[in-house]
Amino acid sequence: MKMQNINKPNINEKEYETQLEKWFKGLSSITDSEIGITRLAFTDADWQARAYIKTIMESLNLEIREDAFGNIFGRYTPMGMDEYIPAILIGSHIDSVPQGGNYDGVVGVLTGLAIIKFFKDLENQISSDYKQSLLQNPLEVVIFANEEGSRFGAATLGSRAIIGELANSELDRLIDKQGLSLRTALITRNLKPNNIDTGNILYKNPIKAFLEVHIEQGRVLEEKNYNLGIVTGIAAPARFKVTLYGNSDHSGATPMHMRRDTLCAAAELILSLEEYAKEVSHTDEPVVGTIGVINVKPGAMNVIPGETELGLDIRSISEVARTKIVTHVKEKLEELSKKRNISYTIDEITSENPISLSGNIIQTLSKACENLNYEYIKMPSGAGHDAMNIAKLAPTGMLFIPCKNGISHNALESAKLSDITRAISVIIETIHLL
Amino acid sequence: MKMQNINKPNINEKEYETQLEKWFKGLSSITDSEIGITRLAFTDADWQARAYIKTIMESLNLEIREDAFGNIFGRYTPMGMDEYIPAILIGSHIDSVPQGGNYDGVVGVLTGLAIIKFFKDLENQISSDYKQSLLQNPLEVVIFANEEGSRFGAATLGSRAIIGELANSELDRLIDKQGLSLRTALITRNLKPNNIDTGNILYKNPIKAFLEVHIEQGRVLEEKNYNLGIVTGIAAPARFKVTLYGNSDHSGATPMHMRRDTLCAAAELILSLEEYAKEVSHTDEPVVGTIGVINVKPGAMNVIPGETELGLDIRSISEVARTKIVTHVKEKLEELSKKRNISYTIDEITSENPISLSGNIIQTLSKACENLNYEYIKMPSGAGHDAMNIAKLAPTGMLFIPCKNGISHNALESAKLSDITRAISVIIETIHLL
Repeated sequence: MKMQNINKPNINEKEYETQLEKWFKGLSSITDSEIGITRLAFTDADWQARAYIKTIMESLNLEIREDAFGNIFGRYTPMGMDEYIPAILIGSHIDSVPQGGNYDGVVGVLTGLAIIKFFKDLENQISSDYKQSLLQNPLEVVIFANEEGSRFGAATLGSRAIIGELANSELDRLIDKQGLSLRTALITRNLKPNNIDTGNILYKNPIKAFLEVHIEQGRVLEEKNYNLGIVTGIAAPARFKVTLYGNSDHSGATPMHMRRDTLCAAAELILSLEEYAKEVSHTDEPVVGTIGVINVKPGAMNVIPGETELGLDIRSISEVARTKIVTHVKEKLEELSKKRNISYTIDEITSENPISLSGNIIQTLSKACENLNYEYIKMPSGAGHDAMNIAKLAPTGMLFIPCKNGISHNALESAKLSDITRAISVIIETIHLL
Repeated sequence: MKMQNINKPNINEKEYETQLEKWFKGLSSITDSEIGITRLAFTDADWQARAYIKTIMESLNLEIREDAFGNIFGRYTPMGMDEYIPAILIGSHIDSVPQGGNYDGVVGVLTGLAIIKFFKDLENQISSDYKQSLLQNPLEVVIFANEEGSRFGAATLGSRAIIGELANSELDRLIDKQGLSLRTALITRNLKPNNIDTGNILYKNPIKAFLEVHIEQGRVLEEKNYNLGIVTGIAAPARFKVTLYGNSDHSGATPMHMRRDTLCAAAELILSLEEYAKEVSHTDEPVVGTIGVINVKPGAMNVIPGETELGLDIRSISEVARTKIVTHVKEKLEELSKKRNISYTIDEITSENPISLSGNIIQTLSKACENLNYEYIKMPSGAGHDAMNIAKLAPTGMLFIPCKNGISHNALESAKLSDITRAISVIIETIHLL
């Protein structure tokens, strides 16, 4: 680990790499699928992974706390420090999408643990006089519960609970594929859904800063050949469910001009969304529109799809650009409805506001990179992260590292250990500068 | 029932309607679903329905036989007639799609039974001299097994077995959603898959003619305001599975221009197929192209579909028009593959030849309608039927009656009793003319 401004102690960099590799390997074995990592929120695999991290926290003598929603905190207060001094929070999540990878979220949690281990090791080596100047704040690693939206269709729920923006009614509304509500899932894990509003820990204690290291989940760093991305803002998604209603006629007996084929209507919407998102990205600000979910009914070779359901995900760090796309989709639906004699419904699933991250933290992260002679770019995050919620509570920063071919949410997800240790060095330097 | 050229006997038309209503009602209660009729081939519901029809056959004293694939035949040989005289075969199927209707197929089987009942009643009433001229051939009702493709993904299997075109290897290749092979399904029902090639009944005995009454499964009769359609040919389907392969990137973190989105590629194919099928229908011969099945992977809101699977169904009674569409699809796939940097596979699932029905039977059906003063149109069948297979074995004719709003393969499927009795009159007159 590189660290400026501290008389370099006797830290064996290789030892940290070996430690990180061991932790990554330990977590990679905890999965519900043979291919990739499957740790859906609140499942047994998720719970085993949390237990694994808690064991590491215990080995580091951290003070472990868990809130009513299941967010886990492991706090390191340097010897002699007043425990009421606001902590610097570092972390991310360890739940995953189905057949995802071992880096999304995990990198942020394990870097947090490695950083605490680094400071603890330092503490044991250096003189007690110096110890006072080493850390000005307690460090706290956080594991946010239910970051991925795969199980209940809504993401970053743990951090939303922390900032008091998870409505009690949502606990019943959000339901998984087996029909189990989020509330039931929480109760099954002995958590306290009724205490979410009042029972969380962080909401009551001030935080000095929150730092999240994460894989980019895109190919921008890789294509531009950078190892570090300092995140300027987060393009939270607006999500919609669109359902088109036509006629389930027989595929053979219905001439082309007599059809009310909802899949053909959906195809027009899909292409129109793609084209317009490209156009707005070109003329205004970057914006993305994706249809990742499509279901047709009845779904048989010899029946024209009389019903088609689409899941739309629209993102930009510019509210204006995002609204343009949403308006375009609504106009297109109206046009298609008339042209093809079909009806439709459009329901908003989520619409979180794009978030700008703390200018002060962005500046400090940049300074840290410069101190260490690391090159970086500033970039927006297209993916949503817990950081966008915690940003409402405390100065928040995010640091991206590349992932191979930009692949994430996939068994092929991969990140370099050297990029992870580089990010750790930047965060350590940032903590020092803060 | 109307019948020309026979001194009208004392037949109570109302009695036949009541009888038909009772039979339809009896079958409608045999289903695996609460909504509509679900009698997938070789399931318990299918087997109960077959038992119900056999009971009717027994009550009519028919000679019941069943072949190695489970096709059922109920033969009526008028008193004193040489049993080797070729029979006139009448029938269809009683298996259904999931949540289908009570008319698709059933109409053809029950009209066959009603017609035999009619001739038997006549036989009991008229003088023995006249009996000789009443029927020149035995009548035989057939229930074809596994007409619908819903369970094993391939249709009209019973009639294909009869004409010797069901390869033994298909019995293992065709598999249902539970992974059960067609061969296992046959064995479970005590049928004899090993005897299909040699063990069928009809393949060895000549047939005078085959007549199938069926609902249209489209809106052409209804929109043109006709009660009868004489079918000129059957547009058997060519079916393909197309799979597109791109990249499952993160929906938020991947700019529009960096994507390899297979759903967008699929959308282009869907619209191109629709447009070109309309064009060829307009300039050449009627042809239809339908994509009724679409599945995307991984199928999550926040992941770009890296894989999209499509089921294509293309039909025309013109082989030339159909081939044009298939060629167009292949060219479009090649174009999309280059343009969007994706790969693809295309697999033919079935490709049956379009069939022209017997000119002689078409003429006789027309004459019968004219004798009875019934209006009719001649029309192609866009849906596949067992008639297209039996046409290779014997002079074959089909008679369509309207179904409400053209709906079939749906719980809302409905046909008028008056249209069914009208079709029965036409078939009786046709038998007389033959």
